[in-house]
Amino acid sequence: MIRRISLIWFSALAVFFGCSSPSTIALLTDYGWDDPYAGAIQGVILSINPEVRILNLTHAVPSYNIREASYVLVTAAKEFPEKTIFLAVVDPEVGGSRKAIIVETLDQKLFVGPDNGLFTDAIRTFGFKRAVSITNVLWFRKGDISSTFHGRDVFAPAAARLSAGKNMDDAGAKLLEKDLVMLERTPAELTEQGITGEILHRDHYGNLVTNIPASILAKAGWRAGMALEFVLKYQVVTAKFAQKYSDVAKGEMVLVLNGQGLLELARFVGSAGDSLRAMAGDSIVVRTVGSTEPVTNSSPAATATLSKPVSNRVK
Amino acid sequence: MIRRISLIWFSALAVFFGCSSPSTIALLTDYGWDDPYAGAIQGVILSINPEVRILNLTHAVPSYNIREASYVLVTAAKEFPEKTIFLAVVDPEVGGSRKAIIVETLDQKLFVGPDNGLFTDAIRTFGFKRAVSITNVLWFRKGDISSTFHGRDVFAPAAARLSAGKNMDDAGAKLLEKDLVMLERTPAELTEQGITGEILHRDHYGNLVTNIPASILAKAGWRAGMALEFVLKYQVVTAKFAQKYSDVAKGEMVLVLNGQGLLELARFVGSAGDSLRAMAGDSIVVRTVGSTEPVTNSSPAATATLSKPVSNRVK
Amino acid sequence: MIRRISLIWFSALAVFFGCSSPSTIALLTDYGWDDPYAGAIQGVILSINPEVRILNLTHAVPSYNIREASYVLVTAAKEFPEKTIFLAVVDPEVGGSRKAIIVETLDQKLFVGPDNGLFTDAIRTFGFKRAVSITNVLWFRKGDISSTFHGRDVFAPAAARLSAGKNMDDAGAKLLEKDLVMLERTPAELTEQGITGEILHRDHYGNLVTNIPASILAKAGWRAGMALEFVLKYQVVTAKFAQKYSDVAKGEMVLVLNGQGLLELARFVGSAGDSLRAMAGDSIVVRTVGSTEPVTNSSPAATATLSKPVSNRVK
Repeated sequence: MIRRISLIWFSALAVFFGCSSPSTIALLTDYGWDDPYAGAIQGVILSINPEVRILNLTHAVPSYNIREASYVLVTAAKEFPEKTIFLAVVDPEVGGSRKAIIVETLDQKLFVGPDNGLFTDAIRTFGFKRAVSITNVLWFRKGDISSTFHGRDVFAPAAARLSAGKNMDDAGAKLLEKDLVMLERTPAELTEQGITGEILHRDHYGNLVTNIPASILAKAGWRAGMALEFVLKYQVVTAKFAQKYSDVAKGEMVLVLNGQGLLELARFVGSAGDSLRAMAGDSIVVRTVGSTEPVTNSSPAATATLSKPVSNRVK
Repeated sequence: MIRRISLIWFSALAVFFGCSSPSTIALLTDYGWDDPYAGAIQGVILSINPEVRILNLTHAVPSYNIREASYVLVTAAKEFPEKTIFLAVVDPEVGGSRKAIIVETLDQKLFVGPDNGLFTDAIRTFGFKRAVSITNVLWFRKGDISSTFHGRDVFAPAAARLSAGKNMDDAGAKLLEKDLVMLERTPAELTEQGITGEILHRDHYGNLVTNIPASILAKAGWRAGMALEFVLKYQVVTAKFAQKYSDVAKGEMVLVLNGQGLLELARFVGSAGDSLRAMAGDSIVVRTVGSTEPVTNSSPAATATLSKPVSNRVK
Repeated sequence: MIRRISLIWFSALAVFFGCSSPSTIALLTDYGWDDPYAGAIQGVILSINPEVRILNLTHAVPSYNIREASYVLVTAAKEFPEKTIFLAVVDPEVGGSRKAIIVETLDQKLFVGPDNGLFTDAIRTFGFKRAVSITNVLWFRKGDISSTFHGRDVFAPAAARLSAGKNMDDAGAKLLEKDLVMLERTPAELTEQGITGEILHRDHYGNLVTNIPASILAKAGWRAGMALEFVLKYQVVTAKFAQKYSDVAKGEMVLVLNGQGLLELARFVGSAGDSLRAMAGDSIVVRTVGSTEPVTNSSPAATATLSKPVSNRVK
């Protein structure tokens, strides 16, 4: 009897004082670290739910770059516990006809932002559970809704309401997975010319992350210790495929598996991106050394791969 | 009876465990994201009030730029709930004779920082309630007070003490609104030459925010859809006045109302600031297309406006 | 009796609801503010301890620069309360033979990161209490451990477990202070040529912080108001030794004591680092004006000092 009363007390207190683990909203935008926008959306969130925990993943994905943001988002989101709410905004078409959406993935994570492909990698990695279009005006920020700052007026209020326990079904009409805009990428695959893929992310060290997973490298029979050759931006470069950056001398190019198990081009204590003048979206072919005519001699296969359109649905 | 006891218990517990919504201190400085200074002030705050919530608005307003910081601060602060404490430091004259102040605005927000004009836009937007000069040494950081880092030694401790429930009147002598340093700006007004104003902020996209509000554009009878012309840095540029960025083609110049209802110059998926070589503080004239002789033909009215000093009291 | 029961209740509730002041993990890395890495380690921490407070000191110490990171870390860490856990990662040799360590200092702070000299200044400033090597696999992140991202796989989980109350002795074998990698610096000392030292940090204003403390300047009898001369990167520059930046005209070079009581070279509202093309690690000699032949006339003493190796153990 005393135990039952205690339990009721404890639960009541937990609710009353908001003392259980707080909900978390993790922010990812291209709003920059130097402008008022990232601060403004934090203010909107706190005004709606003063108990929530706000974390900043980054506000500096390259401006307007939905493709790169999608990779950065999934890479960070992967490490978070279930029920985390991700508020992600890279939204060049703000105020236009693109939808505002909430997506729940199979691992119980929630993603709030524009329907422009930004959640492509999250949905492919975590699995689609359900989605809604945010159309209920009661979910918006109070006052006028601008045509230029939906992060503040639509997305942040929606994330805050979710964090305060509102059900996403209340935000608007259900969407099917096929209704959502998804990015397409150059598939990572083993071909006669080698393994094809694309650069997903150029990080601030200048490391170039590809979408080529360890499994395809294993299928090709390539192991750490081998010298490989890659074709990128009409350059053919030889580099050691190694366990870690420091397996080569300072300044040398190296191929490693990054923290996601994806092939990454790096220079040890240097910048691969700078010297290769490469960036996210560039196509790449990786092959064993000398396995193909140099691309500069206009090898038809390799150039065909390089000029292949990177995406069919979103530029 | 049992209810009364419960209530007392609940209140006692809330105080004892610090479980009610925490106070929030929001930081805005030019201390940079790469240096120890922003971290140091967070440490000072936590040492005084371990319960407070610390949020970073930005630490990257342009170095020493009080004018731009004032706009960035008010734009973010506007979205925060009452009782939020803003610790803002852009302080080139640190250690000199400028006062250290706390300002309370009519919407119950508190601003802590140097008296150099940094709170101009906050006071004009939210309304002045009261202010004090921070002179009580018990409010300072323990130990020696440097002449070069008042963010750590004076402002952060004051913000932390406010967050812990101290009354601002205890910090030092009362100040009147007229005692405070205020910035002056080129007034946004409808003149014979068009609408005059100034650039308040160049954001990281390269968007140029002016101080020209929607109301003056409405007064001039200019509506979204019209082509307008602006004179900025001796350049005359024509651009569509539109609802949203994506109303023009990629790379084209566009005029929109930003999230504050202020006229903003942008390039859709591009940088207006880069191509116009313009920045905060520059004067601007906006007019209908062809309404005036081009400024490059030395139109006296327009050039007079452009060379008008931007501020009388603070450079 | 009632009092005793209340006390037990209170303690039980505090533990149950996690309502006492949360543990704090403060992050310092070279992971950048624009990449997924800083977000990922926050996710790992929250997955292990959902109650912890996470603060970001900086993620933008210069890439791979252990020397500069060591100074930035100690400067921020100094201001934090005891029991704060610092998770610091600048780790070019990730995946190699360098140890992963936890260091406790005499002021009850905990430092988690690679054993590569990163904690040199913290240990020298706060005093060494004890250290362990993180080798217990139960302390690692679940799943495969990468060779390229120990911040996520080793250091963040260790910091999170410490924050959740685990004892550092459980993480691995004890290390002695002499087992740890420590940086060496050009000693700050009064010599016949003047005071020698090195640049510890170039901040984002372009201020150059030296390791020359106020005490050595006092020993030399140099006081604010004097004109001094410094030799840096083969340049001889005269500057006023002043109380504060604004003691000289805008754009002029000035020597001040920074917030740590260390000599700092600055330009008032300008960048000393830009004009001197100097950075962390550069040696410096400070002397009274005209006290020595100019270094450009190949004064042997001064050039000897300038070419002296900056570190014997870590490049």
